Amino acid sequence: MIAVKYKEMLGAKSVIRELSEYASARGREIGYENVFDYSLGNPSVPAPEKFKEAVMRLLTECDPMTVHGYSPSLGIPSVKEKIAESLNKRFGMNYTASHIFMTAGAAGAIAHAVRCVTVPGDEVLAFAPFFPEYHPYIDLSGARLRVVPADTDGFQINFDRLEEMLTGKVAALLVNTPNNPSGVVYTRETLERLAELLRRKTRELGHRIYLISDEPYREILFRGAEAVYVSSLYEHTISCYSYSKSLSVPGERIGYLAVNPACEEAETIVSMCGQISRGIGHNCPSSLMQLAVAEVVCETADLSVYETNRDLLYEALTSLGFSCVKPGGTFYIFPKALEEDAVRFCRRAMAYDLILVPGDSFGCPGYFRMAYCMGTEKVERSIPVLRRFVEREYGKRQGGV
Amino acid sequence: MIAVKYKEMLGAKSVIRELSEYASARGREIGYENVFDYSLGNPSVPAPEKFKEAVMRLLTECDPMTVHGYSPSLGIPSVKEKIAESLNKRFGMNYTASHIFMTAGAAGAIAHAVRCVTVPGDEVLAFAPFFPEYHPYIDLSGARLRVVPADTDGFQINFDRLEEMLTGKVAALLVNTPNNPSGVVYTRETLERLAELLRRKTRELGHRIYLISDEPYREILFRGAEAVYVSSLYEHTISCYSYSKSLSVPGERIGYLAVNPACEEAETIVSMCGQISRGIGHNCPSSLMQLAVAEVVCETADLSVYETNRDLLYEALTSLGFSCVKPGGTFYIFPKALEEDAVRFCRRAMAYDLILVPGDSFGCPGYFRMAYCMGTEKVERSIPVLRRFVEREYGKRQGGV
Repeated sequence: MIAVKYKEMLGAKSVIRELSEYASARGREIGYENVFDYSLGNPSVPAPEKFKEAVMRLLTECDPMTVHGYSPSLGIPSVKEKIAESLNKRFGMNYTASHIFMTAGAAGAIAHAVRCVTVPGDEVLAFAPFFPEYHPYIDLSGARLRVVPADTDGFQINFDRLEEMLTGKVAALLVNTPNNPSGVVYTRETLERLAELLRRKTRELGHRIYLISDEPYREILFRGAEAVYVSSLYEHTISCYSYSKSLSVPGERIGYLAVNPACEEAETIVSMCGQISRGIGHNCPSSLMQLAVAEVVCETADLSVYETNRDLLYEALTSLGFSCVKPGGTFYIFPKALEEDAVRFCRRAMAYDLILVPGDSFGCPGYFRMAYCMGTEKVERSIPVLRRFVEREYGKRQGGV
Repeated sequence: MIAVKYKEMLGAKSVIRELSEYASARGREIGYENVFDYSLGNPSVPAPEKFKEAVMRLLTECDPMTVHGYSPSLGIPSVKEKIAESLNKRFGMNYTASHIFMTAGAAGAIAHAVRCVTVPGDEVLAFAPFFPEYHPYIDLSGARLRVVPADTDGFQINFDRLEEMLTGKVAALLVNTPNNPSGVVYTRETLERLAELLRRKTRELGHRIYLISDEPYREILFRGAEAVYVSSLYEHTISCYSYSKSLSVPGERIGYLAVNPACEEAETIVSMCGQISRGIGHNCPSSLMQLAVAEVVCETADLSVYETNRDLLYEALTSLGFSCVKPGGTFYIFPKALEEDAVRFCRRAMAYDLILVPGDSFGCPGYFRMAYCMGTEKVERSIPVLRRFVEREYGKRQGGV
């Protein structure tokens, strides 16, 4: 009587988790400071002081019955109003509270969005390289994830393959920019071309194609990268946001989903999200956390360390002969491995206490991901180790590092 | 392309919510203090001071990277250890952290438990009167809720009807004691008889029948009622707990699911819950809230007002001629209406600004629910109004109130 579909999932191991567990075990052995753990995408800077102050103020100055009371099933209206206002100001949108649904991070937002705009059997397309948790979000909804192969030249969109795969079965596309794992930011040109294609295909296929935009790294954008708000280019966009990375509060499970007001079904989709939540017994994120993020809606943690680390690593990797697209945001970089089998490449790196994640998990074999959310000092110390690894294992002797 | 199953749910209005909205609107008109709103089961006492202190301490004294960091997917181990320890001490169990999964309140726990122990098409039995949200928790999992008619003599279990309905299709039973809406606590005799029946049926039907025990009111138990821990009587029990009522923090969405260690599948069920959460993108309650409840695992808010209110209302209602089972816990009472159609009865009460909920929503027509989570002063003021309503509408003139 045990539900087979969930029991069977227990067998499948997450490569990232296995690597991270290995790194922890190795850390206990030789000291964690000696393990260069580039496996996990965990923010490495504290939440901003203003966030802490906001929580303390709510606890000491406000009625506990309000602060800890039930949230309305679609989220606290005053919180949603502040979020709408901030998005409108920054991105020239015209959201109101009725276009926003509060979620358990971007994860909850994507899982809800997929359930709203698909029926079982529908296809959702994502672009390699992609965050592997898209599989459970989509597969357990009854829809089917299909992966458009990567554009390995620049990790933008492989439009030829996309157009082939955009059949009548496709209900939605899932994009993620700035991207995990590549760190790449989609250009305005890419996003405009995508919007144009979706409009044309909507006409040709006779049904609306939704764009689900996964944006947990929206605020981690480096100099020179243009902040294009996906929804501003395509009306049938559901934006999925998380405060996990921008405020460094991943354990608080707080984010939202925002449906473009120009989408005819916008308010219906938000209301449907409330019904989906009822079914899983979720009923909104913590009221305290909703009220707290509304107080710091324009703040972020000090995210500058990620750009410093990107600069160091990009310089080191290219000097060592790696082929690598320069990240425009996030805290990831996604170089090409020095042998065809990236799993083997990453295994060889483990002997040097370098924990790298093979691109296979992200639908892009032959590459590997480094999550550089750590102190800059550690990144600096890892570079000679990386060089030793490359020189000894692959005989490369580029200078400059 | 919009998912019909969720869209269709938008049409169905919740009677409780409609009544509560009416009460709010009426309150704006005549002053909220003049509306006797017995509709909503919202805690009316603040969270204990020690809970606030625990949150403040976590914020000021602990590393924000830990306090706001990712929770492991099955919950924070130290939190689960403290919960296990407390349950073991209070109820003579032998839980460890591996039997516990942290959830978004009892709602999240039930929704996960149902998904673990059913496959689509299975039946889950609940007992009238029952909390109407059981419908989405069960129906949206693909299983089917079937309701065993009430034992209206004492709101214990109607064993004759249960036995008829306990066919091979039944995967699980859902019990709720202390009960919403009746306020009744199942006796040890009832629970022992239930356990015996389930063991016999398991043998006869050749498959295990799980008992899902919904326990958000476990700590709101009045003098004279025996605290029987359901799981201590039946090994295949999944206990679903919430801190919403005991700590008065319903908006924090924090609770847990605990599987009896004697259940062979206990640890598998807990691991499966992690997979179910992945699918809906939930990934555990707030880390801060997990850590906070662990600090006050033996505390409750000052719950005494609920017993005071119970005494006042039970006395008043019986004096007015209502037939009514005396609640042993919760903050609900469930008298028989003074006419057959409880919907009509409750509508007539609205003219007196008495907001009562017809039992039809709880699978028990002819009765009505009063949620007496409010200041005692208001309950006192409502009694003459209740008397006026009864006398004018139904011509009853019992004394004593």
